[in-house]
Amino acid sequence: MERIKSKFDTFRQRVNIIIYGTNTAYGRLFDLVLLGVIVVSVIIVMLETVKGFDQKYHFELIALEWVITVFFTIEYILRIISLKKPVKYIFSFYGIIDLLATLPMYFSLFFVGTSVLSVLRAVRLLRLFKILKHPQFSNQSINLKEALVASKGKILIFMYFMLISSVIIGSLMYVVEGKEGGFSSIPISIYWTIVTLTTVGYGDISPITPLGQSIASIVMIMGYGIIAVPTGIVSAEFANYNAKKGIPKATNPCPNCGTEGQEYNAKFCYHCGVAL
Amino acid sequence: MERIKSKFDTFRQRVNIIIYGTNTAYGRLFDLVLLGVIVVSVIIVMLETVKGFDQKYHFELIALEWVITVFFTIEYILRIISLKKPVKYIFSFYGIIDLLATLPMYFSLFFVGTSVLSVLRAVRLLRLFKILKHPQFSNQSINLKEALVASKGKILIFMYFMLISSVIIGSLMYVVEGKEGGFSSIPISIYWTIVTLTTVGYGDISPITPLGQSIASIVMIMGYGIIAVPTGIVSAEFANYNAKKGIPKATNPCPNCGTEGQEYNAKFCYHCGVAL
Amino acid sequence: MERIKSKFDTFRQRVNIIIYGTNTAYGRLFDLVLLGVIVVSVIIVMLETVKGFDQKYHFELIALEWVITVFFTIEYILRIISLKKPVKYIFSFYGIIDLLATLPMYFSLFFVGTSVLSVLRAVRLLRLFKILKHPQFSNQSINLKEALVASKGKILIFMYFMLISSVIIGSLMYVVEGKEGGFSSIPISIYWTIVTLTTVGYGDISPITPLGQSIASIVMIMGYGIIAVPTGIVSAEFANYNAKKGIPKATNPCPNCGTEGQEYNAKFCYHCGVAL
Amino acid sequence: MERIKSKFDTFRQRVNIIIYGTNTAYGRLFDLVLLGVIVVSVIIVMLETVKGFDQKYHFELIALEWVITVFFTIEYILRIISLKKPVKYIFSFYGIIDLLATLPMYFSLFFVGTSVLSVLRAVRLLRLFKILKHPQFSNQSINLKEALVASKGKILIFMYFMLISSVIIGSLMYVVEGKEGGFSSIPISIYWTIVTLTTVGYGDISPITPLGQSIASIVMIMGYGIIAVPTGIVSAEFANYNAKKGIPKATNPCPNCGTEGQEYNAKFCYHCGVAL
Repeated sequence: MERIKSKFDTFRQRVNIIIYGTNTAYGRLFDLVLLGVIVVSVIIVMLETVKGFDQKYHFELIALEWVITVFFTIEYILRIISLKKPVKYIFSFYGIIDLLATLPMYFSLFFVGTSVLSVLRAVRLLRLFKILKHPQFSNQSINLKEALVASKGKILIFMYFMLISSVIIGSLMYVVEGKEGGFSSIPISIYWTIVTLTTVGYGDISPITPLGQSIASIVMIMGYGIIAVPTGIVSAEFANYNAKKGIPKATNPCPNCGTEGQEYNAKFCYHCGVAL
Repeated sequence: MERIKSKFDTFRQRVNIIIYGTNTAYGRLFDLVLLGVIVVSVIIVMLETVKGFDQKYHFELIALEWVITVFFTIEYILRIISLKKPVKYIFSFYGIIDLLATLPMYFSLFFVGTSVLSVLRAVRLLRLFKILKHPQFSNQSINLKEALVASKGKILIFMYFMLISSVIIGSLMYVVEGKEGGFSSIPISIYWTIVTLTTVGYGDISPITPLGQSIASIVMIMGYGIIAVPTGIVSAEFANYNAKKGIPKATNPCPNCGTEGQEYNAKFCYHCGVAL
Repeated sequence: MERIKSKFDTFRQRVNIIIYGTNTAYGRLFDLVLLGVIVVSVIIVMLETVKGFDQKYHFELIALEWVITVFFTIEYILRIISLKKPVKYIFSFYGIIDLLATLPMYFSLFFVGTSVLSVLRAVRLLRLFKILKHPQFSNQSINLKEALVASKGKILIFMYFMLISSVIIGSLMYVVEGKEGGFSSIPISIYWTIVTLTTVGYGDISPITPLGQSIASIVMIMGYGIIAVPTGIVSAEFANYNAKKGIPKATNPCPNCGTEGQEYNAKFCYHCGVAL
Repeated sequence: MERIKSKFDTFRQRVNIIIYGTNTAYGRLFDLVLLGVIVVSVIIVMLETVKGFDQKYHFELIALEWVITVFFTIEYILRIISLKKPVKYIFSFYGIIDLLATLPMYFSLFFVGTSVLSVLRAVRLLRLFKILKHPQFSNQSINLKEALVASKGKILIFMYFMLISSVIIGSLMYVVEGKEGGFSSIPISIYWTIVTLTTVGYGDISPITPLGQSIASIVMIMGYGIIAVPTGIVSAEFANYNAKKGIPKATNPCPNCGTEGQEYNAKFCYHCGVAL
């Protein structure tokens, strides 16, 4: 009994190293294989929706899909087994994603014609975001994240301003243009305003009265101009970040009081005055 | 008499604290309720214009609208009562907005079929801008405002340049394209130019002659390139603003060795270790 | 004879002050009136091309146009008279613009149905650029100009790169899409590429084959991404400009050797060592 | 024999100077002529695809094309002859481009109706990128390149994020909109997502259900907002680059008074006036 447990522990540790490790050769290989399978699996989901392709290769797609589903199922079970306290993983964001990636095919055995469910498999793609946590990329993505988080407040206010503007302009255009130009209700007019403010401009709805076109022109110039605001905020934050980075940060914390961020050429801790 | 006046004064003060206060629990609750009512009220205005929905729930929408109108009316009266000198408020921007938010429904009793007036209720949305003055957001929105105000001069010149360019390019396209491509008058051509310069590109009007398409190509590249100008202006202003903020507010140099650039919260000189 | 000449000289000086002066009350008034007349005149040119409006008010428009033309003619003559050496003005950019602003109406007396010529009157609008040289705006517009001139080299290389890319991508799409999708010739395909790269996206031509749509997707992402390049160049240049401005430049040059750019708190010239 | 070899060597050197030299008068002339011929040749390729033009001037275009092909062939042979070790050139990027620029016409002698091949001649355009290596432009283009290379990591992560988002949003829209709105398969939906996220907005496919339009609105605002990210990255990198260039390379502090930040070319300390 003891031996079996000890054997299982060894097995669990090995699996853990392969699945969660990023430094060992096997760990890297596993990450690479997993990446490949996810990409293939998402391509299959896509191809199934392309009518001509699906009719020709329906059987092959389904077969390949089952292989992938079994692979994901085994991986999911191994992930749970290899952890000492799997509950945290199971209810984590990626734990739920991993589960959702396997379920749709099993459901398809019991329910027929569930195309919505089968598209759910595309959720597997979210697993690819995990790569950004990889040591190789994490440094860069943390930079990006920090700069974006730092500008969150300003961006939110900007969004709030844009949203209210869209509703007001949308209501105005509804009154001005009426139903001929396609501005059939205020929600539709708001949709048009967003299409215009963001400079997307589908052209499915476009103003036809001179007054409507004049207001639209102002909205376009507004949209063209105010893109400068988020861009300016984020640019300044990145520049700020670069500037901070420019100052060498590789100073050790004080050995006495542990205060970090000592000056580059400091001889004494600025907090407790002990010689460094 | 005196007592009634004194009681009224107490009542006025309490109402004032609830309506205008942002620090008390009741004040915050009131702000939150008001926010909710405004959002609901704007959604009602929107839904009334969606044909299918309005036909089904016309009575419910009108009933809810009356509840909201009465709420806004009471709020408006309380706002006036709770101030010692209400005249300033009544003729202020938000005072007029608050009044306009209540009137349309009362007018609808006397005049029938005034859809334009009913849309006027969307003006209530402007009240949401007041939130930006809230202590929680005011810091960020002041930053935004300052940076935009600082770049106002350059932005205006840029707008002026764009406007004149639009008129000249519009006139040129009118001559080149003629009426086949939809360039039926100079104002329409100017509208097209703005649609193109701002990279919106509806496609309701688009050049069909080779020369027209060549000019359009140049206009597009111009529009694509000159967006750099407002963006650059605002970015530089934000960076400028951050830089100013970034400078630690005047740390004194070490009184012993004269080393400058001490940490903001330093207790000891990082160079000689003397207590600051 | 002498007296007449002297009288004419006085008249010339007065006219000169009114027309070219920007500091005197009359000079400012004249600038303002001129601005108004130009704007009115351009609006007339526009309205003449709007069919419904022109049919109703044809006579009024023509009459007003003649008043303006006479005004511009007198102004043009006064400008020439008031200068001692008018040749330079006559052949300058704004001299030619001023002449072109008056001619079309006179030509219309001799030639009938010259709509192209009449649009030439829109050239008057170019005169509005002169305002940017006004003392009030010149400071800001010089800033703008300097930052743009400084980034000219990089912008040109960027444009060169974009142009060549457009031709190559256009040729590729011509081969891939063929004539069904509207890619009927390489020039048209290049036009489409520019429409797409600049994120304008009219939708008059759009790819319909899967391969074409894939290439188009890459082109769009490219276009979306590389807008960062001109924006980044100009932003950095503005930031650079602001930074330079930030450094107090009001230090006097060395009285001994004349070297400029002394440190703000310098006590001695850094070049010759003389006390400042 | 010796003499012939020596003569050939002289010839080779002369050709080398003309073809590869950028400082001699002949070298510059050759570059200019080559530039002209490439541009003319690409214009011919374009015009051949314009139906009306090709039918009128088919013979002239073919004749001119042959002249250019012979010119390129001679140039290619001279390039190889003039080098001592031509193998490296032959298999270099520009070597292959130069060869591809000559072949299509010779193939057209043997194979009829190879329009795809004839478009291959557009590849000649790639030769124009060589200009960026010219001493006159190389400085600026190196700057551009360095700033872009420095921001490569962040840009790649951003692209990765956008790609995955496009697939997920595309799948979602496929489920929400169904086939009526033109979202006939997931790949098409992804194409639409990219068209929308990059703010191109053709309008060939656009959502028609309220839910689809709501999601589309969010996607547009996302696309409008996240353009700030690459722009911010590149802006910061350019600013960084400018800043580095701007910092005087390490001036020593004054040996007498220890004042730092001496002017780059200072001969005397600006604080105490001692010779540096």
